Amino acid sequence: MRDVVILGSTGSIGRQGLEIIAANSDKFRVIAISSAGTNPALVIEQAKRFNVAFVGVLNNGDLIRTELPGVKVIDGALASTQIASIECDVVLNAITGSIGLGPTLAALHAGNTLALANKESLVAGGELVMSKARENQIIPVDSEHSAIWQCALAGKSDEISRLVLTASGGPFLDRKDLGGISVADALKHPTWSMGAVVTINSATLVNKGLEIIEAHYLFSMPYSAIEAVIHRQSVVHSMVEFRDGSTIAQASPPNMKGAIAYALNFPHRLSQASPAIDWSASHSWSFEPINAARFPAVTLARHCGEIGGAMPAIFNAANEVAVEAFIAEKIAFTSIVPLIESVLTLSEKSAPSTLRDLADVSAIEDDARALAHKHLIRLVS
Amino acid sequence: MRDVVILGSTGSIGRQGLEIIAANSDKFRVIAISSAGTNPALVIEQAKRFNVAFVGVLNNGDLIRTELPGVKVIDGALASTQIASIECDVVLNAITGSIGLGPTLAALHAGNTLALANKESLVAGGELVMSKARENQIIPVDSEHSAIWQCALAGKSDEISRLVLTASGGPFLDRKDLGGISVADALKHPTWSMGAVVTINSATLVNKGLEIIEAHYLFSMPYSAIEAVIHRQSVVHSMVEFRDGSTIAQASPPNMKGAIAYALNFPHRLSQASPAIDWSASHSWSFEPINAARFPAVTLARHCGEIGGAMPAIFNAANEVAVEAFIAEKIAFTSIVPLIESVLTLSEKSAPSTLRDLADVSAIEDDARALAHKHLIRLVS
Repeated sequence: MRDVVILGSTGSIGRQGLEIIAANSDKFRVIAISSAGTNPALVIEQAKRFNVAFVGVLNNGDLIRTELPGVKVIDGALASTQIASIECDVVLNAITGSIGLGPTLAALHAGNTLALANKESLVAGGELVMSKARENQIIPVDSEHSAIWQCALAGKSDEISRLVLTASGGPFLDRKDLGGISVADALKHPTWSMGAVVTINSATLVNKGLEIIEAHYLFSMPYSAIEAVIHRQSVVHSMVEFRDGSTIAQASPPNMKGAIAYALNFPHRLSQASPAIDWSASHSWSFEPINAARFPAVTLARHCGEIGGAMPAIFNAANEVAVEAFIAEKIAFTSIVPLIESVLTLSEKSAPSTLRDLADVSAIEDDARALAHKHLIRLVS
Repeated sequence: MRDVVILGSTGSIGRQGLEIIAANSDKFRVIAISSAGTNPALVIEQAKRFNVAFVGVLNNGDLIRTELPGVKVIDGALASTQIASIECDVVLNAITGSIGLGPTLAALHAGNTLALANKESLVAGGELVMSKARENQIIPVDSEHSAIWQCALAGKSDEISRLVLTASGGPFLDRKDLGGISVADALKHPTWSMGAVVTINSATLVNKGLEIIEAHYLFSMPYSAIEAVIHRQSVVHSMVEFRDGSTIAQASPPNMKGAIAYALNFPHRLSQASPAIDWSASHSWSFEPINAARFPAVTLARHCGEIGGAMPAIFNAANEVAVEAFIAEKIAFTSIVPLIESVLTLSEKSAPSTLRDLADVSAIEDDARALAHKHLIRLVS
């Protein structure tokens, strides 16, 4: 029986994590959940259903506390960080955005195994996070990194010559003109059903850029050995190439439950976590190089990754501001990446080459966000 | 430095094995080679080039002995079996046909690790062979089984739910009429360059049937959990599905050197054994179910495998006679599988349920061959 803590329990990954646990109640028990608390009814329902001991929320703490007698309700900005420190077998960090970094560090510090869906932890604080983690303490939940993790088992780590991340390409891969894209358009992902921010990041391919940085830290691979290719069907989730020329790929119909279950249950595989490929039907899997001119976000992210230090955190913070502005219909879809680029250009010279702690990361992010907002005003006016 | 013995050194796999060793002379040394001896000039050349201590040949022993002073030349029907018993780090059994079974058993008996390209060893004597082998003593060289071996490393053996073998489908997959196929037509494989018998076996899909039986023994999987699918590009060499719905695939441009090098160097991967996939180009991988009505060999082989005992050996022996007759232009391409089927029908009731030793297997094969020849005469006349 594994005791599980879920951060971001009301989001897409968090809810799927709870579904897996509900279907495997002989193997897992939820002892704590945390979330922003903006959907208090759902928080209360989850807490009751899974009979949790602890609930952490940013907002609506008092309301939730009243409804959950006997449950320890922690509220405020540090709620998820405190929840992440509870002794357990695995913490699923399914928070969206770089606010997930504090909880990530807290989970590692407490010695908990971390099923990490919050890729921004590694983008914004990659060196910091990896320096605190022991071997196999962080199990990735992103489908791409879960795939790489699984494929890497087919050889020794020093035999890996290349990581090949797949990208669906998002909804606009074949759209001639990227002008006039509405928020609703950008939220229609062709193959994956995900949270809003990740879906927009898929449409700009910023997501693939973030994942390249994430892969660099998780698997200690140089950027020159991390490739990304368009794979429209989202069935092959990523691949590992070994030095003998052999490529190992992980595949399954698009469904996050496989990766979530793998991370929760590592090193064991959970029976029927997600449907397998149906070989009684025909399939066609295509792979194409990314058009870097059309989707410059990948090159930009790679550039930030190669400089390292504060640059990935700046890239991510600028993107967070840009996506928020796009969702609020303040800027055009085509302004997202140029906005990031402007912030990067202005920051590159002064960006610190190391980030020592969470405070360092937060300060860098605040500066980048301020810079992004300043640019935003210029774009909007 | 690994001491290598190569059986079938003048065949396609044997020659490629020697090329790998020549390119990695810091890692491997050839101490003995064996072959039918029908190409004595090549045997002599190989023996000199690799400075081997032992040569085994079926034919032309005296001629070869004269040309190789200082080399111990063994000749006759048991030459390969004796060569297989020489103490070494790995024996590559690249003999074609079920005459490879004796050498396989000899290599195992001597305690040598066996890189097994001779699939007929496992088809004709699967239970016998596996009962003599310790864990990881047999490393498969067939590209499909090498792929499965590699993919299986991504999980525990009791987590494997299915093996998915890929088949190129051979040259006649889309040909409307299988009548009037010449030997030259059947030898034109669309993706692989291989020996003649394997190429004909690919065209009838008998090869995939043999490989299903081979996979059953090598990986201890029931036939119901071994799938075969058409994959025209021959890039994905096979796959393993785990119980959580995750499928792990092994891929590389068609080239046997990857699998040969993997088996010779296991558990390490040999640098640049074969070219990796070029991701700067686009790729499309297709998978389709096998049309069982058009290619009945797979169902037939599966049926033999499920009965077990002598039936797989009979299947293989009948096919060997049929292919030989086709190559000699005695029977039509479309008569190969019906000939096998006739032999199986006649043998099924009386076929022994176990084969205790090599003599048992040989007797069964002799009977099956005699039966096949009898049928052959009827077909020809």
